[in-house]
Amino acid sequence: MSDSLKVALLGCGVVGSQVVRLLHEQADDLEARIGRRLELAGVAVRRPNRHPDVPADLLTADASGLVERDDIDIVVEVVGGIEPVRSLLLNALNRGKSVVSANKALLAEDGATLYEAASANGVDLYYEAAVAGAIPLLRPLRESLAGDRITRVLGIVNGTTNFILSRMDATGAGFDEALAEATSLGYAEADPTADVDGFDAAAKAAILAGLAFHTRVTIADVFREGISAVTANDITSARAMGCTVKLLAICERAGDSVSVRVHPAMIPRNHPLAGVGDAFNAVFVEAEAAGSLMFYGRGAGGSPTASAVLGDLVAVARNRVNGGGGTRESAYAALRIVPMGEVTTRYHVALDVADRPGVLATVAGAFSDHGVSIQTVRQEGRGDAATLVLVTHSAPDAALSETVDYLSGLDIIRRAASVMRVEGMDAD
Amino acid sequence: MSDSLKVALLGCGVVGSQVVRLLHEQADDLEARIGRRLELAGVAVRRPNRHPDVPADLLTADASGLVERDDIDIVVEVVGGIEPVRSLLLNALNRGKSVVSANKALLAEDGATLYEAASANGVDLYYEAAVAGAIPLLRPLRESLAGDRITRVLGIVNGTTNFILSRMDATGAGFDEALAEATSLGYAEADPTADVDGFDAAAKAAILAGLAFHTRVTIADVFREGISAVTANDITSARAMGCTVKLLAICERAGDSVSVRVHPAMIPRNHPLAGVGDAFNAVFVEAEAAGSLMFYGRGAGGSPTASAVLGDLVAVARNRVNGGGGTRESAYAALRIVPMGEVTTRYHVALDVADRPGVLATVAGAFSDHGVSIQTVRQEGRGDAATLVLVTHSAPDAALSETVDYLSGLDIIRRAASVMRVEGMDAD
Repeated sequence: MSDSLKVALLGCGVVGSQVVRLLHEQADDLEARIGRRLELAGVAVRRPNRHPDVPADLLTADASGLVERDDIDIVVEVVGGIEPVRSLLLNALNRGKSVVSANKALLAEDGATLYEAASANGVDLYYEAAVAGAIPLLRPLRESLAGDRITRVLGIVNGTTNFILSRMDATGAGFDEALAEATSLGYAEADPTADVDGFDAAAKAAILAGLAFHTRVTIADVFREGISAVTANDITSARAMGCTVKLLAICERAGDSVSVRVHPAMIPRNHPLAGVGDAFNAVFVEAEAAGSLMFYGRGAGGSPTASAVLGDLVAVARNRVNGGGGTRESAYAALRIVPMGEVTTRYHVALDVADRPGVLATVAGAFSDHGVSIQTVRQEGRGDAATLVLVTHSAPDAALSETVDYLSGLDIIRRAASVMRVEGMDAD
Repeated sequence: MSDSLKVALLGCGVVGSQVVRLLHEQADDLEARIGRRLELAGVAVRRPNRHPDVPADLLTADASGLVERDDIDIVVEVVGGIEPVRSLLLNALNRGKSVVSANKALLAEDGATLYEAASANGVDLYYEAAVAGAIPLLRPLRESLAGDRITRVLGIVNGTTNFILSRMDATGAGFDEALAEATSLGYAEADPTADVDGFDAAAKAAILAGLAFHTRVTIADVFREGISAVTANDITSARAMGCTVKLLAICERAGDSVSVRVHPAMIPRNHPLAGVGDAFNAVFVEAEAAGSLMFYGRGAGGSPTASAVLGDLVAVARNRVNGGGGTRESAYAALRIVPMGEVTTRYHVALDVADRPGVLATVAGAFSDHGVSIQTVRQEGRGDAATLVLVTHSAPDAALSETVDYLSGLDIIRRAASVMRVEGMDAD
């Protein structure tokens, strides 16, 4: 039998320990599928004495030394963060090793540099696990839809925020209460900033948009709004119009420009994404020829993420065995990324208003003056409890937000009780 | 610039004409994604004078001659059926051409022969379009989940029957009426046998099972029951227990054996597959590490199917350019395929019974005598309209069907009003 392929693992936490387990349990199957045996040749961790489940002779605190070992064929990285991981992976690629990574932050920050090194060295760079955990998504975008034109990607790609919003919807809880529940159940980290403020989803949006549109997109190109300002009132407002609130990653193509954004939005309850509850992920893809597709599954967790890592590992190992590897960035289209103000969106606006004649005319006039047309308007309550609820037609986001700003300054408006974008409703 | 890659197209009907369109419209994008230009070099059709949209100099009635042309790199087949297509594709593979096919019948009947030829000649055999049209499914099974162990595939893979069953559910129509509507709307062919009797779904089930379980599965291994015996009464019975009726393709692994079957089944209305309406397809996949995944989209139609064909075309073209092609069958596991009688299922049984003392005891005793335990039983109506409705726990399918046969012969049973398997309920 030919020599085994030697794998170095960087990181052995929730995901890494599952990678170790699967490499061991599935060894025979993996060998049959690849044509060579995969051998775990080293595991770099911060504290080698904290990993009793990994054979001691494999553990090392010296990640650099492990990556530089001549016998290593493939480096699997499940550490996360930008440095020192970027340097380690560049070193690996430049030494002719293929890389499998689950590192969304690094890919979204500086994927181009990694791609360049992979391409220059004729080796592979795979990262299915970086977006939506176990859900096969990047490979379908990059390969299955390679003969089609993707026009839109609409996804729930962060399980923590989806859990929080699902709880707010189900129980009427406010954000803080739902976050506390998520934390106590282990769905949210002690510092929930990356999830709650949308950084995690924004990194994934950048990766998805880059693959979908063959255009280099980094996290800096992504408009980002988190969910910490979503109120129980927003959820109630959404419900009143047959919607629920989700944190969406939205990548859209319009002509030769694209937009990439992450923000909470109201979507109709009959939209397939509306039913995606708890910490599940789902991504809707629209392509010109294929029509609408949806991918659904577990977006996080050690075992599901490890499944995606192993799938990539088999692919790069097969390329080692059969030839044909060498991942190149596909950014030939270089489409223009438009700023958020130019993106076409729709708003739901609930305004607590003074109940006197002419209020509706003033509000309608303000939208009209900003070039925004109104689809529906209704008044709720009377007197000091009067609220105007409006849903606009599509308009540039800047015009919509300027209208709301303008209205908020008027003394007939007591308060903008809820302002949120609306997605997934029929085109208007 | 290097020479273009030359593509021969066999068949130019609903799918083929869309392949021609996309090859033309997306030519520049395809070239950028592949690194070489794709050139449509010939189109074989039965009647060349019937295709005004294809340049006349590309059309030929001589498929054999086209496949044998030395300048052809890739053969795309959208004809369907076993012969003469098998001979044509074998000839192509043996002459070193890669093949992209949408031919589920051929792959399910004799995929092994095609694989052997592809492998022997180091060329590719791709067929994503053969199952579930535009939905990326085979590539995720074969590649994304290659490091995992798939335990179950549960799919709605035939749009015609899904449309018919959805109409029966929505309108209370009987099978014949719903079929007539499907025919008039173009969802069913003039001869609907292949769809209605489950042959189409069975071919797809064989392909899915083969990839999921790394085991050679042909359509002859698939237990098959169509939907023509599904009655409005079955739909009503399903509704009474919170279920709907779907034609399911079910591939299951239990230990070191697998089962593959297609039959109508009741599934709970809150199961994600229950909401898949009209002619849409969706496939649920369960894997040990990944957990539950679902893929959803358009399973048929010229444009969606062509999208899948083009995705494969880009993949095999990339392999031509970069090396690394050479598709091999992955059937190393060679798991035992168990006959239907041994498969564990659950039954819903509605029996019109004589309303006299001891009927329930007799019925319950018959199930017990066959080793089947009952989960729920209720009586509907009284006197001559009395019906016993039972749902069993899991048991070997043979025991269940023998019980029903036995009961049908008793004079206290006036009629087995509805007998149907139940899937997707919580394990028992």
